[in-house]
Amino acid sequence: MYAKIKQEAYEANMELPKLGLVLFTFGNVSVVDREKQVFAIKPSGVSYDLLKAEDMVIVDFDANVIEGDLRPSSDTKTHAVLYKEWNEIGSIVHTHSAYGTAWAQSNRDIPIYGTTHADHLTVDIPCAPPMADEMIAGNYEHQTGYQIINHFEENNLDYRAIEMVLVGNHAPFTWGKNGQKAVYNAAVLEYVAKMALLSEQINPDIKRMKESLIKKHYDRKHGNNAYYGQ
Amino acid sequence: MYAKIKQEAYEANMELPKLGLVLFTFGNVSVVDREKQVFAIKPSGVSYDLLKAEDMVIVDFDANVIEGDLRPSSDTKTHAVLYKEWNEIGSIVHTHSAYGTAWAQSNRDIPIYGTTHADHLTVDIPCAPPMADEMIAGNYEHQTGYQIINHFEENNLDYRAIEMVLVGNHAPFTWGKNGQKAVYNAAVLEYVAKMALLSEQINPDIKRMKESLIKKHYDRKHGNNAYYGQ
Amino acid sequence: MYAKIKQEAYEANMELPKLGLVLFTFGNVSVVDREKQVFAIKPSGVSYDLLKAEDMVIVDFDANVIEGDLRPSSDTKTHAVLYKEWNEIGSIVHTHSAYGTAWAQSNRDIPIYGTTHADHLTVDIPCAPPMADEMIAGNYEHQTGYQIINHFEENNLDYRAIEMVLVGNHAPFTWGKNGQKAVYNAAVLEYVAKMALLSEQINPDIKRMKESLIKKHYDRKHGNNAYYGQ
Amino acid sequence: MYAKIKQEAYEANMELPKLGLVLFTFGNVSVVDREKQVFAIKPSGVSYDLLKAEDMVIVDFDANVIEGDLRPSSDTKTHAVLYKEWNEIGSIVHTHSAYGTAWAQSNRDIPIYGTTHADHLTVDIPCAPPMADEMIAGNYEHQTGYQIINHFEENNLDYRAIEMVLVGNHAPFTWGKNGQKAVYNAAVLEYVAKMALLSEQINPDIKRMKESLIKKHYDRKHGNNAYYGQ
Repeated sequence: MYAKIKQEAYEANMELPKLGLVLFTFGNVSVVDREKQVFAIKPSGVSYDLLKAEDMVIVDFDANVIEGDLRPSSDTKTHAVLYKEWNEIGSIVHTHSAYGTAWAQSNRDIPIYGTTHADHLTVDIPCAPPMADEMIAGNYEHQTGYQIINHFEENNLDYRAIEMVLVGNHAPFTWGKNGQKAVYNAAVLEYVAKMALLSEQINPDIKRMKESLIKKHYDRKHGNNAYYGQ
Repeated sequence: MYAKIKQEAYEANMELPKLGLVLFTFGNVSVVDREKQVFAIKPSGVSYDLLKAEDMVIVDFDANVIEGDLRPSSDTKTHAVLYKEWNEIGSIVHTHSAYGTAWAQSNRDIPIYGTTHADHLTVDIPCAPPMADEMIAGNYEHQTGYQIINHFEENNLDYRAIEMVLVGNHAPFTWGKNGQKAVYNAAVLEYVAKMALLSEQINPDIKRMKESLIKKHYDRKHGNNAYYGQ
Repeated sequence: MYAKIKQEAYEANMELPKLGLVLFTFGNVSVVDREKQVFAIKPSGVSYDLLKAEDMVIVDFDANVIEGDLRPSSDTKTHAVLYKEWNEIGSIVHTHSAYGTAWAQSNRDIPIYGTTHADHLTVDIPCAPPMADEMIAGNYEHQTGYQIINHFEENNLDYRAIEMVLVGNHAPFTWGKNGQKAVYNAAVLEYVAKMALLSEQINPDIKRMKESLIKKHYDRKHGNNAYYGQ
Repeated sequence: MYAKIKQEAYEANMELPKLGLVLFTFGNVSVVDREKQVFAIKPSGVSYDLLKAEDMVIVDFDANVIEGDLRPSSDTKTHAVLYKEWNEIGSIVHTHSAYGTAWAQSNRDIPIYGTTHADHLTVDIPCAPPMADEMIAGNYEHQTGYQIINHFEENNLDYRAIEMVLVGNHAPFTWGKNGQKAVYNAAVLEYVAKMALLSEQINPDIKRMKESLIKKHYDRKHGNNAYYGQ
């Protein structure tokens, strides 16, 4: 019944170690079925070496387990909130990839310094601040989802155009229309994060790139007259 | 009819991921046929895992597609301009390799600090500034080609001796007599870019190396009495 | 008679090069048998390419060789002291992994900047200072064990909760309930060490993360109501 | 007649790319036969993918080719001088490994910050200054050998205890009793060079480690009562 999203979630999860985005089990991918209002997510703490498609856990948007013998990822409630509130996303990825996580630990947005960044989004990669103590002590992973959503709303950011975020002192989350695209975004974030640090080290007086160039590159891939790809 | 340049372009493109110079499809190589006045270039956005020699697109120097079912690289017009204006180059490579791109994002030339650099060129690796807004908004990739050419002319740089450039806020372009050499230059640029940053971190008061040593190393490989290689 | 700990020590040792934690023979793992009061440890200077389970040397808690034709690791006395004094550890790992060793060379604790760190321990990773000259000149490896233990006691650190330490100007030691967990901790230390340096480079004014978030993440994995894993 | 040193030089050369110490052909190893007063060295500019043991070129201590169809490494005269003047070395390695070369480009000795360094030598890794212009313009590679030797003599350094050097604005040279040991030293230099930079980044006020600890670690491996290895 859920074979399709289980398989897609499994394949997307298996891309994370291949792309060098996870150490041990520090990451997870989920894929949603919008009709059935459930998503398939990696089970918690299971090694990628041993992971199978049938291990994926089926969960609804209130984070109830619908099917599966294993406990779902400890970040499941964050995924559930994002699927519930943002109804145009098809997959979510969470990693502790080294450069992305270092920016999150630094509580800084990643400034837009070049076309590699502008090919994917037109603003700095946002970093949501750490939550208030009472939210952390409460329903933590649930609140993490709302921390991300509130940060987007307060800053007029559109989740359909900006498919990635850092959570302060924690790590990145990315999303996309499907598992492949969400994982792609996780790898892009890591690559852009690395180059942004290197750029600041090369030139401490570096400035953001100019708007005309940002717009041009973004529109090449995403505008009405996009001409990148097939 | 174009099998030879298609095969050469294909093989050169496939070297980019092996050398760690591209993430996903962030790069492309073209190879020219000077007699027929066309070049073979990677199709846009096609994964290296799936790429085949017959996918290469044949394009003329005004960037018209001559043969091929796929859309050529979005950077095709830049390649076309460079082949048109610089008639001694046989192949062009564009990557977003991490260190080279970080220098480009920093809008700095890469200073000549050691013999690894001097083995390949005798001056800093030039960084062309970002274009004026009206050029970006116009025929962008076409203008990128002229931005590179104008930067070389204004600074009395010879493209036959300096086979690489950074485009400000964007990324590197390299070229050479054939696909293998152009890819080789892309890898050399990345390696030199990495070591230049490390050198500045080790010694913030670092100076460029002296002219006598630059000349000696360059002439070992490129002078009339070169004695490097077979 | 000692086949079980030899096999476990062998397998744990073989994980070190796979995880990129050792160059040549710069590392060793031991696994203890608490009933027999002995441990199995890597022989000194034997290449990982040639290592076999039967090469493991059996040593008692006073560092006497009980079984084995090869000389045990030169760090054997440090392992012996730690097993003797800390009776709840099952395995010890020593590496010269690059980032962990760089922090040790810098004689700095690794500050707790993010949840990746807090998932494993709630305080900075401690760095024991280099020993007094007379201890170095004396029974060096034996004293190294006591240097670690004394540092934990003087700073009220609990080795059961903090399974890792840096030895100043030297390198990391980690431990755990078994070989797999001790090696896991060695990899976590290296990853956290790398991200801590990157974080300080991204934000020179960086602060430690707040206590509420540290506690939450640690308790997710280690508290009475832990819900990470299966 | 020279099969043994050709085979040993070939195998040592092939270790360089495996250890990540060379890009393309930026490195070479030679192995000496002291009785016959010749050495086997890599041919110039031949790709490691295509290299065969029989390609090694046999050269005497005045840099005359004794046997071989290919041109020897462009650094051959440096090797010849070192074999001629330092009669206890059995093999020489030259690489442009990234961190070692970055220190050379910075014209700084690599300070001794930890036991990984002290396990191999008791002083900073020396960096010989770039040569005077007239020496560069003259018999350059021959003079490079003497530049190294003179730097050791002027600073009372013993090549038998210090098996590595940086040549300013150029790159590292290492040596040892045989090919395997000389390559080992090249990898150790690179690893120590990387960790020294990281250590300075972690702690800008870092000091050299103390003499008692240097001596202890060096003697563990090299003293009269050495107890490292089998």
